[in-house]
Amino acid sequence: MSGSVTVVGLGPGAPAMVTPEVTAALARASDILGYVPYVARIAPLAGLKLHPSDNREELARAGHALEIAAAGGHAVIVSSGDPGVFAMASALFEALEAAPQYQHIAITILPGITAMLAAAAAAGAPLGHDFCAINLSDNLKPWDVIEHRLRMAARGDFACAFYNPRSKSRPHQFARVLEILREECEATRLITFARAVSTADQVIHTCTLAEATPEMADMRTVVLVGNSTTRRVGSWVYSPRSAS
Amino acid sequence: MSGSVTVVGLGPGAPAMVTPEVTAALARASDILGYVPYVARIAPLAGLKLHPSDNREELARAGHALEIAAAGGHAVIVSSGDPGVFAMASALFEALEAAPQYQHIAITILPGITAMLAAAAAAGAPLGHDFCAINLSDNLKPWDVIEHRLRMAARGDFACAFYNPRSKSRPHQFARVLEILREECEATRLITFARAVSTADQVIHTCTLAEATPEMADMRTVVLVGNSTTRRVGSWVYSPRSAS
Repeated sequence: MSGSVTVVGLGPGAPAMVTPEVTAALARASDILGYVPYVARIAPLAGLKLHPSDNREELARAGHALEIAAAGGHAVIVSSGDPGVFAMASALFEALEAAPQYQHIAITILPGITAMLAAAAAAGAPLGHDFCAINLSDNLKPWDVIEHRLRMAARGDFACAFYNPRSKSRPHQFARVLEILREECEATRLITFARAVSTADQVIHTCTLAEATPEMADMRTVVLVGNSTTRRVGSWVYSPRSAS
Repeated sequence: MSGSVTVVGLGPGAPAMVTPEVTAALARASDILGYVPYVARIAPLAGLKLHPSDNREELARAGHALEIAAAGGHAVIVSSGDPGVFAMASALFEALEAAPQYQHIAITILPGITAMLAAAAAAGAPLGHDFCAINLSDNLKPWDVIEHRLRMAARGDFACAFYNPRSKSRPHQFARVLEILREECEATRLITFARAVSTADQVIHTCTLAEATPEMADMRTVVLVGNSTTRRVGSWVYSPRSAS
């Protein structure tokens, strides 16, 4: 029996943003594993086993997928967005490193439309020049690493995309992020809050750094901060291709 | 007559990475505009006008799309990868800013799989933690901005993706990039050269910064540099979810 693990990106929400290769991988799956709301996006099918699990269960989920594959199954791990951006691909390789007996298993990572790029497209082109992607959650890294990266990104005049900007368990941290940005950037810097991108609930709101408040972000929001040249044209926000 | 401009991302090359919404937009187009090799990816169709143009013609191409839309046509501008990442979306908004008479035109940007995420998926998950995307071409920005950003990215311990690392007209610059990385990072830092990702010509090569040479990159290559924790497991390269 020759099983497999495939990690796929479902994109930010819209079915029309799921790539054909991901749709084909889902059709071949014997088992689908993932965080509850992502598995809920998969249509049930006779014979297809669905394994929804909790948010903080990434490593256990990855280990389970490897076990299924070792037994000959075709496990598909679903991520929102792209599996390689703050998602399940890294967790799978961590699990693989810890379990060398599984290193013969066929693994495939299939990219998806990550939230920041869908958000940027909905807003215009705020990431059209050099940019950084930063996960603002300190679940897996010290907060001072996040602060340092924010300052380096600002001093490099990178546009930035922030994932997981704010949650109920750490409501104060995004306020601190705005403080740091205000120390490093001008008050007129444009910042876009993109909530529930590509779904029926999508809201795109752009304001200046001076106008931004912590309440504008929640866990369904990706935040895009422009660079020093990012500007508006009509209702759009974009970063020109040149640096100045 | 109510025309439109849609800027779409064709992904890195594989047809199976083109999203259904992009395929649908192409099917509705009256005119398709883009850089010669990207327009060559579109199947000819009776009544569909193809407008291939040169590499350095982005602004003129964007202006042409706005003119077509103003005359009632449905212009689709095709980009490789994602249109918002070093591609045509910013050029369109630059053209729009210069031509306010077109600001009523319906514009849609449709995201695509950008090269760095397809490359990361093929290599494992080297961008699985905070990362930067930097365009190494100095066609539109001063070289010292690029050097400064490289240093800020390295000092923030970001993984990095480099677009347009090397071309015939500036063969020496990628050598300078490697020099800067060697000043800022340890010699064992992993660096992945991903050429022609998702096509039949795909080659993924990972080595250490000490082993990297300028000739490993060309214009069809996206270069991924790990952060200080990026490691190998079997034939894969990944960045763990934690910072240390």
